[in-house]
Amino acid sequence: MTDGERVLLGHGSGGKLYRDLVKDVFVTAFANPVLERLDDAAALAPRGRIAFTTDSHVVQPLTFPGGDIGRLSVAGTVNDLATAAARPLALAAAFIIEEGFALADLRDLCASAAATAREAAVPIVTGDTKVVERGAADGLFITTTGVGEIVVAHELGSAAVRDGDAVILSGSVGDHAVAILAARGEFKFSAAVRSDCAPLWSLVEAAVSAARGAGGEEVLHFMRDPTRGGLTTVLAELAEESGLGIEVEEDAIPISPAVRSVCDLLGYDPLTLANEGKMVLVVAAGAADAVVAAVRQTEYGRGARRIGFVTAAHPGRVALRTPFGTRRVLDMPVGELLPRIC
Amino acid sequence: MTDGERVLLGHGSGGKLYRDLVKDVFVTAFANPVLERLDDAAALAPRGRIAFTTDSHVVQPLTFPGGDIGRLSVAGTVNDLATAAARPLALAAAFIIEEGFALADLRDLCASAAATAREAAVPIVTGDTKVVERGAADGLFITTTGVGEIVVAHELGSAAVRDGDAVILSGSVGDHAVAILAARGEFKFSAAVRSDCAPLWSLVEAAVSAARGAGGEEVLHFMRDPTRGGLTTVLAELAEESGLGIEVEEDAIPISPAVRSVCDLLGYDPLTLANEGKMVLVVAAGAADAVVAAVRQTEYGRGARRIGFVTAAHPGRVALRTPFGTRRVLDMPVGELLPRIC
Repeated sequence: MTDGERVLLGHGSGGKLYRDLVKDVFVTAFANPVLERLDDAAALAPRGRIAFTTDSHVVQPLTFPGGDIGRLSVAGTVNDLATAAARPLALAAAFIIEEGFALADLRDLCASAAATAREAAVPIVTGDTKVVERGAADGLFITTTGVGEIVVAHELGSAAVRDGDAVILSGSVGDHAVAILAARGEFKFSAAVRSDCAPLWSLVEAAVSAARGAGGEEVLHFMRDPTRGGLTTVLAELAEESGLGIEVEEDAIPISPAVRSVCDLLGYDPLTLANEGKMVLVVAAGAADAVVAAVRQTEYGRGARRIGFVTAAHPGRVALRTPFGTRRVLDMPVGELLPRIC
Repeated sequence: MTDGERVLLGHGSGGKLYRDLVKDVFVTAFANPVLERLDDAAALAPRGRIAFTTDSHVVQPLTFPGGDIGRLSVAGTVNDLATAAARPLALAAAFIIEEGFALADLRDLCASAAATAREAAVPIVTGDTKVVERGAADGLFITTTGVGEIVVAHELGSAAVRDGDAVILSGSVGDHAVAILAARGEFKFSAAVRSDCAPLWSLVEAAVSAARGAGGEEVLHFMRDPTRGGLTTVLAELAEESGLGIEVEEDAIPISPAVRSVCDLLGYDPLTLANEGKMVLVVAAGAADAVVAAVRQTEYGRGARRIGFVTAAHPGRVALRTPFGTRRVLDMPVGELLPRIC
């Protein structure tokens, strides 16, 4: 643990120590005029429909190759807004801190959250801090909530998905989960895997724009980021909710050699592993090439490709076609593979 | 601890167990069409400016006379919206649960949150659940975030406060903190004190309406709920931020006999104790009687009264006038009096 000043129970008091912590750490890291008012609620003036989403982050360890809980807490919420085609408008960040946590670490993690928020062009406008006694929490939990402006007029979601639609994946799967496993020292060999943890609004904005050019924004039917439960869970949920089937080509799903090795050795299925910087998009077949090309132009979408299609042939089921020509059904994982992955 | 089914790590997986928990517990308790879509983000269509606020709740014990963490988590966020004169539009609730937590208790606490949300006429439209290993959290933490529609056109806040304004308090102070102390068994004698934990939108709506009738809504200058740090902290912050002084009459501040006894015995200052169902309002002097009368008509504002006034005489300082005619300065408490009060 880092040396130096530590968080005290008094930092959660609502009194002077609390105000000092808020000003020294949070207002400094997240500097913006709305937050600086320190009102109990921030005022915003959105245009049109808004999206609203929340996520608690309990990842362990707090720092890992490719990211940390600060970056993760911003990216996770930005990405949930992005699934609704919502440009992030403002974030709220609520911290639950264990007494004794190093202030220097808190500053570093807030700096990382702030940098990720700047990257996504979204201000952190309000927040909260609670401090609990030693042993009543594990270091730091961050709950991030986002408000975003929905940039499309139509309803995205499983109900909009149609027989024949293309299923697009924005890049390789499994990187985040394997990076966390590596950071936990759960295997001895060195695996140079970094978490894909990243904010995906630019990627989604490019997809929306490409959809508009390829038949109108309403050719974009569904987006979801494959986090806990991985790609398999997103596809299984979509099949269940839409009442349609999905067919994916195993060969088409990008998996890095390092992730594949770890999965082979430890017996994990990379399709069920969590990602934090990937998006699944379902679009009308005729628009798929344009959307893939546009997503590939973005920083976090370079590995985008079409991985399958929606079909009325086997309603409610996801079929994976293997390179050997066989098919297996992808079922949603039941229990927990990797606790505290995000 | 309650018998029966318990929360498992697998309930936090994102897979099938997770979906079952979300449907069985949260969707059942918070039933509404937006939440039932189970999208990563909820879509809302607010009119005009919105307020946005978040609070983590780590209160211990989870249930106490007059409330529980479920009611508290909804009331706290509704009240923060209310300070911005914002009608609650939608809430998000994020749960961090310790492995082994009784499902029956989780259901009860969600039912309480749902009842409080119904009372405040606000739907819980989105949420999240994380499960951490035994010992990595203390039972249950709930982070609630709110979006509200601001119903006034002017800017409320410390900058709007003027020399001569009236300071109004909606009822007695200290009840929440003393109820928590009693629930923790921190004193042997019986104190029949119930937490004041309640959603205050109706109270604030009545105040806004009365202000409109008494010179226009802009006579309402400032509202804040005296939670952690109590009434003293709200007044000290207001004095600091506004650059004006505040003078309050000790005799005018309602304190129940039971709260007063506990404070006398344990050495607490009731003015620094947390409340969860009270509001401080600062209004132009000419509108004070109308606002007090209107607030008194509401369920949680029956004890409302004018407790003091704003003055340019001692900028940045809060003076308490005692019944003996002496004055003492109220300073913001420095550290923590009562950890995990909310």
